[in-house]
Amino acid sequence: MKIADQEMAEGILFTDMYQLTMAQVYFQMGLHEKQVQFDHFFRDYPDYGTHKAGYCINAGLEWLLDWMARVHFRDEDIEYLRGQKTHRGDPMFRPDFLDWLQSRCDFSSLSLWAIPEGRVVHPNEPLTVVRGPIALAQILETSLLNHLNYQTLIATKASRIHEVGRKRLLLEFGLRRAQGKGANAGARAALIGGADYSSNVGASAVMGTAPKGTHAHSLVQLYMALGMGELEAFQAYADVFPDETILLVDTIDTIESGVPNAIKVFEGLRRKGYAPLGIRLDSGDLAYLSIQAARMLNEAGFEDVSIVLSNNLDELVIWQIITQISLEAPRYGLDADRLINRLVYGVGTHLITSWGEPALGGVYKLVAVYDQDKWIPALKVSESPTKTPNPGYKRVWRVYDNRGNATADLISLDEEDFSAEDQVVLRHPYEYSKMRTLNRSEISEIEPLLVEVLREGQLVYDLPDLEQIRLTRNLDIERLDPGVKRIMNPHIYHVSLSNKLLSLKQTLIDEAREKK
Amino acid sequence: MKIADQEMAEGILFTDMYQLTMAQVYFQMGLHEKQVQFDHFFRDYPDYGTHKAGYCINAGLEWLLDWMARVHFRDEDIEYLRGQKTHRGDPMFRPDFLDWLQSRCDFSSLSLWAIPEGRVVHPNEPLTVVRGPIALAQILETSLLNHLNYQTLIATKASRIHEVGRKRLLLEFGLRRAQGKGANAGARAALIGGADYSSNVGASAVMGTAPKGTHAHSLVQLYMALGMGELEAFQAYADVFPDETILLVDTIDTIESGVPNAIKVFEGLRRKGYAPLGIRLDSGDLAYLSIQAARMLNEAGFEDVSIVLSNNLDELVIWQIITQISLEAPRYGLDADRLINRLVYGVGTHLITSWGEPALGGVYKLVAVYDQDKWIPALKVSESPTKTPNPGYKRVWRVYDNRGNATADLISLDEEDFSAEDQVVLRHPYEYSKMRTLNRSEISEIEPLLVEVLREGQLVYDLPDLEQIRLTRNLDIERLDPGVKRIMNPHIYHVSLSNKLLSLKQTLIDEAREKK
Repeated sequence: MKIADQEMAEGILFTDMYQLTMAQVYFQMGLHEKQVQFDHFFRDYPDYGTHKAGYCINAGLEWLLDWMARVHFRDEDIEYLRGQKTHRGDPMFRPDFLDWLQSRCDFSSLSLWAIPEGRVVHPNEPLTVVRGPIALAQILETSLLNHLNYQTLIATKASRIHEVGRKRLLLEFGLRRAQGKGANAGARAALIGGADYSSNVGASAVMGTAPKGTHAHSLVQLYMALGMGELEAFQAYADVFPDETILLVDTIDTIESGVPNAIKVFEGLRRKGYAPLGIRLDSGDLAYLSIQAARMLNEAGFEDVSIVLSNNLDELVIWQIITQISLEAPRYGLDADRLINRLVYGVGTHLITSWGEPALGGVYKLVAVYDQDKWIPALKVSESPTKTPNPGYKRVWRVYDNRGNATADLISLDEEDFSAEDQVVLRHPYEYSKMRTLNRSEISEIEPLLVEVLREGQLVYDLPDLEQIRLTRNLDIERLDPGVKRIMNPHIYHVSLSNKLLSLKQTLIDEAREKK
Repeated sequence: MKIADQEMAEGILFTDMYQLTMAQVYFQMGLHEKQVQFDHFFRDYPDYGTHKAGYCINAGLEWLLDWMARVHFRDEDIEYLRGQKTHRGDPMFRPDFLDWLQSRCDFSSLSLWAIPEGRVVHPNEPLTVVRGPIALAQILETSLLNHLNYQTLIATKASRIHEVGRKRLLLEFGLRRAQGKGANAGARAALIGGADYSSNVGASAVMGTAPKGTHAHSLVQLYMALGMGELEAFQAYADVFPDETILLVDTIDTIESGVPNAIKVFEGLRRKGYAPLGIRLDSGDLAYLSIQAARMLNEAGFEDVSIVLSNNLDELVIWQIITQISLEAPRYGLDADRLINRLVYGVGTHLITSWGEPALGGVYKLVAVYDQDKWIPALKVSESPTKTPNPGYKRVWRVYDNRGNATADLISLDEEDFSAEDQVVLRHPYEYSKMRTLNRSEISEIEPLLVEVLREGQLVYDLPDLEQIRLTRNLDIERLDPGVKRIMNPHIYHVSLSNKLLSLKQTLIDEAREKK
């Protein structure tokens, strides 16, 4: 894509056509400046087929805010819209509407609340709340969802892999298999969710983490084609990076050639006072090969050298590798935990694409309209009760039990404040007979989750850096029940409604059914 | 992402760290300017779990070329690399290497051959061939794969959906669920592979197609919150877009409310001399609702109004909808084919992410090295014979049978020319006993597939426009056997080797096994 094209395709027109056609309808009806509120939320955790998430890690806000601050209706954008025709050849957009768009120009009329990045989040609770003139809030929808859906999806996947891998070093390797330029947002989200480093140089530069990598098979192939071999290729790498030597040992044959050659080179490094870092296994039975490679490395006195695993890893494969090593390592005279603790995971395709569930179904729904000096809740009555969004302007609370663990999230009306209540009643979002009552003595903390981020376009929030976001994530994950973190068939975390919100929702559903 | 960050993350550092560490090894060993050849190919068709592709549509080349022509090692990039440290705190990159990088600067030393965009392609044949100094060809790898893997993946998915949908209008709706900014490359690939239009405004602007869309549920919700209803919302839309009226009928209840209200508005349009375009169904049993909606529309005299279907469609769901309509429409007195021919498909998430297989496993392998005045084939001896790439500088041929259908692709050495051969021998790529011999009388055409694109950085190829690429695609798909196009369990198309290539490969494998 050429530069001028990129500016067009990634600017304010990074949206769906219907946002603009609806904006023109609002304009022509005189409704375009009407203040409304949209909630952004997702309806289900990612379900990867054989395994499923029990929590998500929220991510994407900062890059969304950067985009919102940067884009506006440029002359080129307006001219493009002016050229769009209907079937009859009439202009699709009216000049007065386009003039208004250009005068309104950008998103500086919007206010935004959000749950911070790195926080554990759950279905059906507002993660982001947008308030402002309907035409602009509507035009923002597509890009907001694009930015937040994908990063939350990948941060969640990274967290799962990180947890299953016993928090051992996790490297994001997915750039080549990522969905185009989404790779950079994916790398960022992976670094938020659980990856320690990425191989993606540009994304690492932006995120302030060191880019990580070793060498490819092609290094060994080049030497072989020139009449030399794997040993010479390894030696060349170690000569140039004596302090950073990780050798890829599977170009020819891992056990017969790669590991013995790596050990020869490591011995040379040791003689010169360097500590070799590791070997990388990229094919075959990674559990079996880890055990065999560890034995050989231990015998040569390289007990601290890492074993980097890669090749279509995900949380399930890593879980299987660890299980297999736990069972088999002792049979080869190895301490399984010690071996597991020297593993490093390089995860590419399955992390950067969230294999099994490559999209998070985040939505952006109109929940309130300001009319005649008050906020009127709005509702979409869908055919399924689980899909009916929660109306009105709301707050989200996290309720912690006596052990300090998160026990439920509670969505309430804005007017409700639970911080001083003696009792909290948690209502099921659509099964009206289900409820749970917690007394104050069972609760250690009730925490509001949404923070104010933009006040009419102005940033009123201190954006946390990567380290702060990671701390937030770690703290939230520590306060989850182990059952919620289970990679298969996780315990369902409760996202409840307050009495008042449930009753408002029911009233509106009844009214809508009557009206139609 | 801020603008300066974007330039860093999407420029020449849109690559993996190991490409740069290897480049420094080559530099320090004096091998960095050595001429080499890399082949890009994929090993398997996308397998979506319940269904699988039997061919792919090649895409992505033009945007890769734009990127290659644009990026270079800027001062900021070099300074960033200069700041990278090893564990001991030494510089990761040597000043003389960085000086060389900056002097070499860009990809203008590389030559490139490719199979054109829009062509049907198959596993293990070189889709792209890169030749030039190894350090730069290596640095290109990651971005080349990123650009070509994703677009080929999505063009393939779009083609499948287009074929199953009987080539009826297909709209790409995926921007909100796409993997970040990959959305634009995905929209382009969808337009190449089978989508007629996209809802993505920016991508449509760049591709020269009209952006398409209607309205969202929020339009109806706004009117309801303001004390009006669905009918008033529909009427407002029709007033503003009398010539482009497509109404989303499932905000309240499709059959009870949406379709009757749409018909009222359509009647008004008809009185004014306008032809309403359609209704959109976005939830529920789309086959059943299509039939009921068609009956109601027909009774009101709107037999030509389109029925746009959306909501998690893919090729399998569309196939089921068409099957169900074929069986059930006659029971309601409808002509099934006529109903199927008025359907339009709006496909979002499952197309833009290639749900089920969100990455194409394209690879980039060193296949030849120029040394002592000749090209030496290079090989990676993997643990699986199916994964051993084909060595050397090669050509790719498509063999057409007497009916004009493509019957096999043939990979040969560069020195071989099949255009005038009396007989073509097709060898299985790794099962040495399998072969097939075609006599000239059985062959209507033997077509070389690779074209020269870049000669030392200079474009020597006329890039086709979207319409030309679509013509290429249509022609290639018409010449595929129906079995290859089957969406489940497709017939396996033969990708064969010439005798000479197979024999070279075997010799190299034997030599490598001896050497290790």
